[in-house]
Amino acid sequence: MAEGAAASSRLRLAGLCFFLQLLTIILFAAFVRYGPESDPGLCSPQSNCSRRDPEPGSGYPRFRDAHLQALLGFGFLLAFLGRYGPGSVATSLLVVAFAVQWALLAQGLFYFSPKGKIYVGAQSMVSADFCTAAVLISSGAVLGRVNPIQLLLMTLLEVPLFACNEFILLSLLGISDSGGSLTVHAFGAYFGLMVSRALRQPRVDERGEQQESGRQPDAFAVLGTLYLWIFWPSFASATTAQDGAEPWAVLNVYFSMAASTLAAFVLSPILYEEGTLQAAQLQDAALVGAAVMGMAGEMLLTPFGAMVAGFLASHLSLLGSRFLSPILSSRLKIQDTCGVHNVHGLPGVLGTLVGTLLAGLATADAYGGRMESVFPLVAQGSRTASGQAWWQLCALPLTLILAALGGSLTGALLGTRALRSTPKSPEMESKVLREVPEDGLNPEASDEELGGSTLA
Amino acid sequence: MAEGAAASSRLRLAGLCFFLQLLTIILFAAFVRYGPESDPGLCSPQSNCSRRDPEPGSGYPRFRDAHLQALLGFGFLLAFLGRYGPGSVATSLLVVAFAVQWALLAQGLFYFSPKGKIYVGAQSMVSADFCTAAVLISSGAVLGRVNPIQLLLMTLLEVPLFACNEFILLSLLGISDSGGSLTVHAFGAYFGLMVSRALRQPRVDERGEQQESGRQPDAFAVLGTLYLWIFWPSFASATTAQDGAEPWAVLNVYFSMAASTLAAFVLSPILYEEGTLQAAQLQDAALVGAAVMGMAGEMLLTPFGAMVAGFLASHLSLLGSRFLSPILSSRLKIQDTCGVHNVHGLPGVLGTLVGTLLAGLATADAYGGRMESVFPLVAQGSRTASGQAWWQLCALPLTLILAALGGSLTGALLGTRALRSTPKSPEMESKVLREVPEDGLNPEASDEELGGSTLA
Amino acid sequence: MAEGAAASSRLRLAGLCFFLQLLTIILFAAFVRYGPESDPGLCSPQSNCSRRDPEPGSGYPRFRDAHLQALLGFGFLLAFLGRYGPGSVATSLLVVAFAVQWALLAQGLFYFSPKGKIYVGAQSMVSADFCTAAVLISSGAVLGRVNPIQLLLMTLLEVPLFACNEFILLSLLGISDSGGSLTVHAFGAYFGLMVSRALRQPRVDERGEQQESGRQPDAFAVLGTLYLWIFWPSFASATTAQDGAEPWAVLNVYFSMAASTLAAFVLSPILYEEGTLQAAQLQDAALVGAAVMGMAGEMLLTPFGAMVAGFLASHLSLLGSRFLSPILSSRLKIQDTCGVHNVHGLPGVLGTLVGTLLAGLATADAYGGRMESVFPLVAQGSRTASGQAWWQLCALPLTLILAALGGSLTGALLGTRALRSTPKSPEMESKVLREVPEDGLNPEASDEELGGSTLA
Repeated sequence: MAEGAAASSRLRLAGLCFFLQLLTIILFAAFVRYGPESDPGLCSPQSNCSRRDPEPGSGYPRFRDAHLQALLGFGFLLAFLGRYGPGSVATSLLVVAFAVQWALLAQGLFYFSPKGKIYVGAQSMVSADFCTAAVLISSGAVLGRVNPIQLLLMTLLEVPLFACNEFILLSLLGISDSGGSLTVHAFGAYFGLMVSRALRQPRVDERGEQQESGRQPDAFAVLGTLYLWIFWPSFASATTAQDGAEPWAVLNVYFSMAASTLAAFVLSPILYEEGTLQAAQLQDAALVGAAVMGMAGEMLLTPFGAMVAGFLASHLSLLGSRFLSPILSSRLKIQDTCGVHNVHGLPGVLGTLVGTLLAGLATADAYGGRMESVFPLVAQGSRTASGQAWWQLCALPLTLILAALGGSLTGALLGTRALRSTPKSPEMESKVLREVPEDGLNPEASDEELGGSTLA
Repeated sequence: MAEGAAASSRLRLAGLCFFLQLLTIILFAAFVRYGPESDPGLCSPQSNCSRRDPEPGSGYPRFRDAHLQALLGFGFLLAFLGRYGPGSVATSLLVVAFAVQWALLAQGLFYFSPKGKIYVGAQSMVSADFCTAAVLISSGAVLGRVNPIQLLLMTLLEVPLFACNEFILLSLLGISDSGGSLTVHAFGAYFGLMVSRALRQPRVDERGEQQESGRQPDAFAVLGTLYLWIFWPSFASATTAQDGAEPWAVLNVYFSMAASTLAAFVLSPILYEEGTLQAAQLQDAALVGAAVMGMAGEMLLTPFGAMVAGFLASHLSLLGSRFLSPILSSRLKIQDTCGVHNVHGLPGVLGTLVGTLLAGLATADAYGGRMESVFPLVAQGSRTASGQAWWQLCALPLTLILAALGGSLTGALLGTRALRSTPKSPEMESKVLREVPEDGLNPEASDEELGGSTLA
Repeated sequence: MAEGAAASSRLRLAGLCFFLQLLTIILFAAFVRYGPESDPGLCSPQSNCSRRDPEPGSGYPRFRDAHLQALLGFGFLLAFLGRYGPGSVATSLLVVAFAVQWALLAQGLFYFSPKGKIYVGAQSMVSADFCTAAVLISSGAVLGRVNPIQLLLMTLLEVPLFACNEFILLSLLGISDSGGSLTVHAFGAYFGLMVSRALRQPRVDERGEQQESGRQPDAFAVLGTLYLWIFWPSFASATTAQDGAEPWAVLNVYFSMAASTLAAFVLSPILYEEGTLQAAQLQDAALVGAAVMGMAGEMLLTPFGAMVAGFLASHLSLLGSRFLSPILSSRLKIQDTCGVHNVHGLPGVLGTLVGTLLAGLATADAYGGRMESVFPLVAQGSRTASGQAWWQLCALPLTLILAALGGSLTGALLGTRALRSTPKSPEMESKVLREVPEDGLNPEASDEELGGSTLA
């Protein structure tokens, strides 16, 4: 198609990348410094934040967290490859590379030191990565219907909102959400769904639906599943710093994933007549089991609780994908490319409810020394267990409203003519940066071009 | 084929999964609790088990073991993908998800606390994962000739037997086998081979042979090889808790794998005339090098010993696959889908013999402070080095007899008409849950269906 | 082609492998022992080597380094798969398996203990792996134009030279180069390029060029990219043993990779008209960002410095691949199969210059307690900061000269008739051990045979 338009679109993306990286470098030069040796990360001693201070001499665990820092975002990336194919990898990498830098700045704003500097360390990298994970979840809802410029702008807007929501929940309200059931999974999913709704383009979407089915590269789904099983339990507990508490969160996530996987074998053949269990479904089951344990992972005191939660969450997710997704699509006009509502949204909400229940039931007897790390405010006596549960519950609608409003506004902005007009020439990025033509006049040809970007 | 039969088969699998998960949850609710903060795992202080108590303040290494817990089983999974293709992944994941939970219960039975509870922690997860690895090895011998229901039942029966054998060896006889040469590799291989023998179905087996060759997805073999090299040395030493002993076990495994890989380049072109060295062969060489170091890894005091052992084991494995496998198949009627006899059985036995030799040669001078952790009974003076060697040697026939008897009985049970009649309709799980028709009336058609489940 | 020649070639490789492994085992038996419990690795207390002694009680971090040991080499392996395809994996594994053992011996020679033994431990395995990485970089320049025997001999010769250069730089001159910008990346790249120049064979090379383009398996590039992002930051700081210094090196590498990736999106669409950003380019960007931080990673005190360095290095690398590579190929007759000059050579040199600049600017105020670990000689007062910078700068031409001379000699030796005449029958190793016929009389047929070795 129009050669000039393709070239100009490419140059606009290049220019935007250059500008954003330059801006980030300047802001980092002005404000960001490495923290002192035993860096306390984001947590200023004054604030009652849920990320605990490292104990003296515990420098090593911090370093290991840094080792894990890059894993979370890329785990999502690998997870999505199974759903949408490697064609999305360049765009996603672009989002991750920018989101990590941007999140450090945005989150640092809320923890300014008195000297006007943002001190970063291994712990703030982990926080930045949680933020990146939320952005990737959101992008999972709109993949295939946005161009890279739109994704970059969505990242630019979502990251500050995420940081704001996280600051309100963790620091102001004193919510415990170490694995991000609410702040990451639910926030990311509903933000993305509202962006998707605002960006809706009737004819293109139908085609998008078609092209998704039938060419999910199983190899990536298999690898993504293995990756989730291997590394996820460690992620989910990356921010629970105290050593005593860590193994339980890890084990809870692990049990939840096991039960969730078995649940997929129970319900999938009943819901879907063809009865073929795709590798992508197993991957979703692992993700669901992990998402539901995000908040409750460090609170649960017994393994069977994690199993029950994972078992129920997997059923909920499968029922959602069977009965709720068609309603979302037809009634609410929300397209959901990678099914983030079922895999992240619903389990995130369920995980929050489980966490609320557990917070209400928490007693000093049952938790012992762990109370300090899991519910610091309750341990200090400034809050009762039921008060903690009330705040945990309040955080849910607050997060959903913030995500929905922010997503709608972002979607409306991204849908403006100036941004939508770019992707007229799909061949410009046919190899890796996949795009969808806005008009969709000759879907067959475009399909072929898009098809060429998958693995042989 | 018969649509109704396919549906009923799917529902039977769903029902079995539901029942097993429910049973597990109930048993966990009744008996399993997280251990106290510095959790001693499976090891009760009374028993003289080879899993050592963590030292005070060593909570962090325990957590890292938890990080590794999921790796072992999935390493095997990835390793088998290279031999049998991603079609087996859903079934294998099902086995892993169930076996981990089941193994925690079965192994916990032998370490009941006085209060009638099973206390789990990171260390017991590692033990459960060793058990899962043995189940996966066994399933490698029968893959392609069993349906998912049969595999689940095999898991149900093998796990308690594994726990029983492990308890006898490690706790009663005081055997040192930290990396599982005997308890995992040899036990799993011979159990699976005997199940395979009992399940033998002449005409189907021939077809199974055919279909294996020629479509080994090299990509998975390459990834599996890298995975083994990267993570295996850490696994093999996951249960050697004392810090001083760890690096040696890691390094020994590493040297053994290096020598084993070079040995594959030496013998393979001599044994096989076509002279093509497949990626799967390199993966096998890495597995062999690791399996032979399972028992001896923490005992060897010099790097060249590990090299010699790996070099010999690789030769033995290659000679076995060239000359022994045809005999097994034709004379003893044992089919071995993934060649577990050569890759796990023989090196496991060789590793046990090496470990026996080293135990007999152990002197307090050479081991110094490590004696306590490698041979606690010898260090305490309740046993001589030659006595330890004698018991290590006795453990070999004991394990082989237990594995063979258990495997035969399990195979006979799985071969009953009620279970075998299920997989009449291969199309029901043609995508991921691959099955083999019992009668094999039209092998060409079935071949095509099965072939459809591999990666493009 | 000639059946007999193929068989003899296979047997020669088998014999060489057997001889080298036997030689290594004998040398290990004679000289190599595990170090004492808290093993100081290669560093004798007398020498002022940059690998610091572990502090008392820090045994555990050492073990983790051992966990990482195998990662580095295999990371490169995975990285190259994306450029040259899995056909190279068997040869590369052979090189790695031998190089690790050989490097332990060669590096140990320079740190002989008074008792005439080489003591190895986790730390020396990390050093051996850095050496293996350099060999893999060199092999990246010549892949596809050498046979396995030539590669083995190149390894045999390059490893001692690497150890010699490393000893001169780190121990004699007191250079700080923890991540190997100079000793690994620059040395490996220029050594390989000179070997490639000496091995140049006009007609074959053209074919090599052709066959490279157009069948880069994107899946491997995607996985390699993820792998680099996930594990590389930890590698780059594997040898900076002190806990306080570690997070900064990790974070600097991470920021550098992020900025480098964004830079690829900036420059790539401008330089290449087709505007398609391949997964392999993203992988290169990640490698470049890591290579440039090799020396400066532990020296940089601010995150934005790492971003600027990564941003510039990525631009330099892309400009080099666009404008410099054609000149290298046409004028200097240097073929560069995997583009190691742009991905390792140029960023390595740039990283050395950045490190020199930082060393010159180092003040005790800015570094505080870290001065001791980053520039031990400056901290001890035996050198000024500008003196340190002078030596860092001198190390650059020294390394380049050593690499170029050694590479030329090695290439001349490998190009002798006796070695070149081997690969006359490509079908002998058509599956994995790919070779190139020397005469190239019927390139079409050979192409087909070679093409058969790629993934479906």
